[in-house]
Amino acid sequence: MAHEISDEPLAMVGGDGPRSYSKNSQFQRAVADAAKGMITEGINQNLDFKNQNLDFRVADFGCSVGPNTFLAVENIIEAVNSKYENQLHSPNPVPLEFQVFFNDVTSNDFNTLFRTLPAYPKYFAAGVPGSFYGRLFPKSTIHFAHSSSAMHWLSKIPREILDSNSPAWNKGSIHCSGTVKEVVEAYSAQFRSDMDCFLDARAQEMVGGGLMAITILGLPEGARMFQTGYGIFYDLLGSCLNDMAKLGVLRQEQVDSFNLPLYHPYVKELEEIINKNGYFSIQRIEKFRKPLSSLKPSVEVLVSTLRAYTADLFKRHFGEDDVVVDQIYEHFGKKLSDNFSIFDEAKHQHTEIFTLLKRHV
Amino acid sequence: MAHEISDEPLAMVGGDGPRSYSKNSQFQRAVADAAKGMITEGINQNLDFKNQNLDFRVADFGCSVGPNTFLAVENIIEAVNSKYENQLHSPNPVPLEFQVFFNDVTSNDFNTLFRTLPAYPKYFAAGVPGSFYGRLFPKSTIHFAHSSSAMHWLSKIPREILDSNSPAWNKGSIHCSGTVKEVVEAYSAQFRSDMDCFLDARAQEMVGGGLMAITILGLPEGARMFQTGYGIFYDLLGSCLNDMAKLGVLRQEQVDSFNLPLYHPYVKELEEIINKNGYFSIQRIEKFRKPLSSLKPSVEVLVSTLRAYTADLFKRHFGEDDVVVDQIYEHFGKKLSDNFSIFDEAKHQHTEIFTLLKRHV
Repeated sequence: MAHEISDEPLAMVGGDGPRSYSKNSQFQRAVADAAKGMITEGINQNLDFKNQNLDFRVADFGCSVGPNTFLAVENIIEAVNSKYENQLHSPNPVPLEFQVFFNDVTSNDFNTLFRTLPAYPKYFAAGVPGSFYGRLFPKSTIHFAHSSSAMHWLSKIPREILDSNSPAWNKGSIHCSGTVKEVVEAYSAQFRSDMDCFLDARAQEMVGGGLMAITILGLPEGARMFQTGYGIFYDLLGSCLNDMAKLGVLRQEQVDSFNLPLYHPYVKELEEIINKNGYFSIQRIEKFRKPLSSLKPSVEVLVSTLRAYTADLFKRHFGEDDVVVDQIYEHFGKKLSDNFSIFDEAKHQHTEIFTLLKRHV
Repeated sequence: MAHEISDEPLAMVGGDGPRSYSKNSQFQRAVADAAKGMITEGINQNLDFKNQNLDFRVADFGCSVGPNTFLAVENIIEAVNSKYENQLHSPNPVPLEFQVFFNDVTSNDFNTLFRTLPAYPKYFAAGVPGSFYGRLFPKSTIHFAHSSSAMHWLSKIPREILDSNSPAWNKGSIHCSGTVKEVVEAYSAQFRSDMDCFLDARAQEMVGGGLMAITILGLPEGARMFQTGYGIFYDLLGSCLNDMAKLGVLRQEQVDSFNLPLYHPYVKELEEIINKNGYFSIQRIEKFRKPLSSLKPSVEVLVSTLRAYTADLFKRHFGEDDVVVDQIYEHFGKKLSDNFSIFDEAKHQHTEIFTLLKRHV
């Protein structure tokens, strides 16, 4: 999940202990599972092996520590191999050799990623550290790009959000809740700029005709963030932080200046950015059902999931004191438990977006 | 430094603390510095840009955690760029884009390696986990291979060495000291087999005409390991372990079964393996002066250097107890201090070997 705040990129919780991202990413896993079929179909319909060398390079942007990235990559390789054999009308062609690049920010726990690689992977693995909003590979070297549950992380919090003199000052909220027009505009502009950097960089790195599959959290047309499950979740988290400021555990100004670097775009918004960027054609773009409701998560699971992707953020903003960070999650767990029913009503107000892009030849 | 014992590869001490390999690898640094000029010359005389794409891939085998690997890579890139400009007779050709693969065993500390990458590297960096005695890259994708102070690490201890019924049983010594013919033969056979695996794998991975620079610890013709600085060093370490067995700190059988997976070949031996393997032509092979004597190292520096490359090995063999491992190095420091003069006499009995190979087109 590449994203930067004040030039210091954040990472998911490393290792594979009980609080690690690798043990607390079942939502992201469900999203990836749901996208699986669309990726297979996309490869089958759109990949072309004319002029293809025998080495095929796949890159996963925002891989974190696994295991979701390994499953996604396996699915891609299976689909590419199947298309390759079909297109050559030969059951035993000279096999492709896959090289898979796992990318995430430099502070990502690559040691754990490498240690937990499949025992006999069908590919040569490599880790690539750095923000995916910049260049990471030489020109025209990537055949298939993939990114799941990562691109809603912004590279930074837009400045206006933190400026008390700006109409976009986000006092009283910790995310882009959708209640203040100027806040939404600032977040949206940051997303647009980040997405453009991402597409520019990938356009250089990918071969002509190469495919890119992106899965990202989004908003249904007409909905606003505070009406969605995630929005309610973050509003509840914000009210927790405010409670803790009142109790003197956190300073009020610390809470006021805390914002999540997250933005969930509309399909049309994403479509417009991609078209305006101009390097890729959209082969498919669609919303799909959020897996959250089908998972019927418990309070415990929701808190651990949140912790795995926010612990680094909290520590950085509220200090390295583990006791304070523990208190935040504990208080949040209680509050979530008391208010669990409100998520049911919001469950249809959320979406995942899947898009398959093709690099112009 | 890829090497395996009982299928569990060893790594240098990670991080960048006072006991890390990155802070205790000045000998390896001196070796790399000495090889620098030969690499530049080798690239200038042997690299050919006919049919060269614009992306140029460099792999460093046994990179450890830096910083030596970064310096070596920078030198390679500088030399390649200079040759590229000269050969095209153009001061401003379309620039090459470099991708550098840093390889070491999976337990290597890649997190530290990535964190300490140069701020603005002239290349796209990737980490590649796994033993370099097997395949790590797709076919024909590497243009320049490099390995410094890594290939004298064997993939495993030859079985006969540990077999009390074998004439190659190495009781009473912890390394290939050169006193027992059968022990030397067993170590030498393991080196030959490892080197062959390495060359076979690289032959597949490298492009035709690609260059490979290897620097490895070696023995001068006619010398035996126990006559060299390193040999004396390891004999002293072995006598330390035996002292500690007598004192009851270590068990005697633990000491008897401990062996360093290291082998220093003769130039002729290495030459013969490469020629017999047949995939590469030797463009240059030569001994060069060991930098150890010029560094005039203190007891302290010698002990820290040893610790950075043996701590993992000791812990695995003698148990994870840090107190015991600390005691080993402490006792060794004292003994080294008492016997420091013996190193002077041995200083000319040691060598580094540099070889530049070219993959047959």
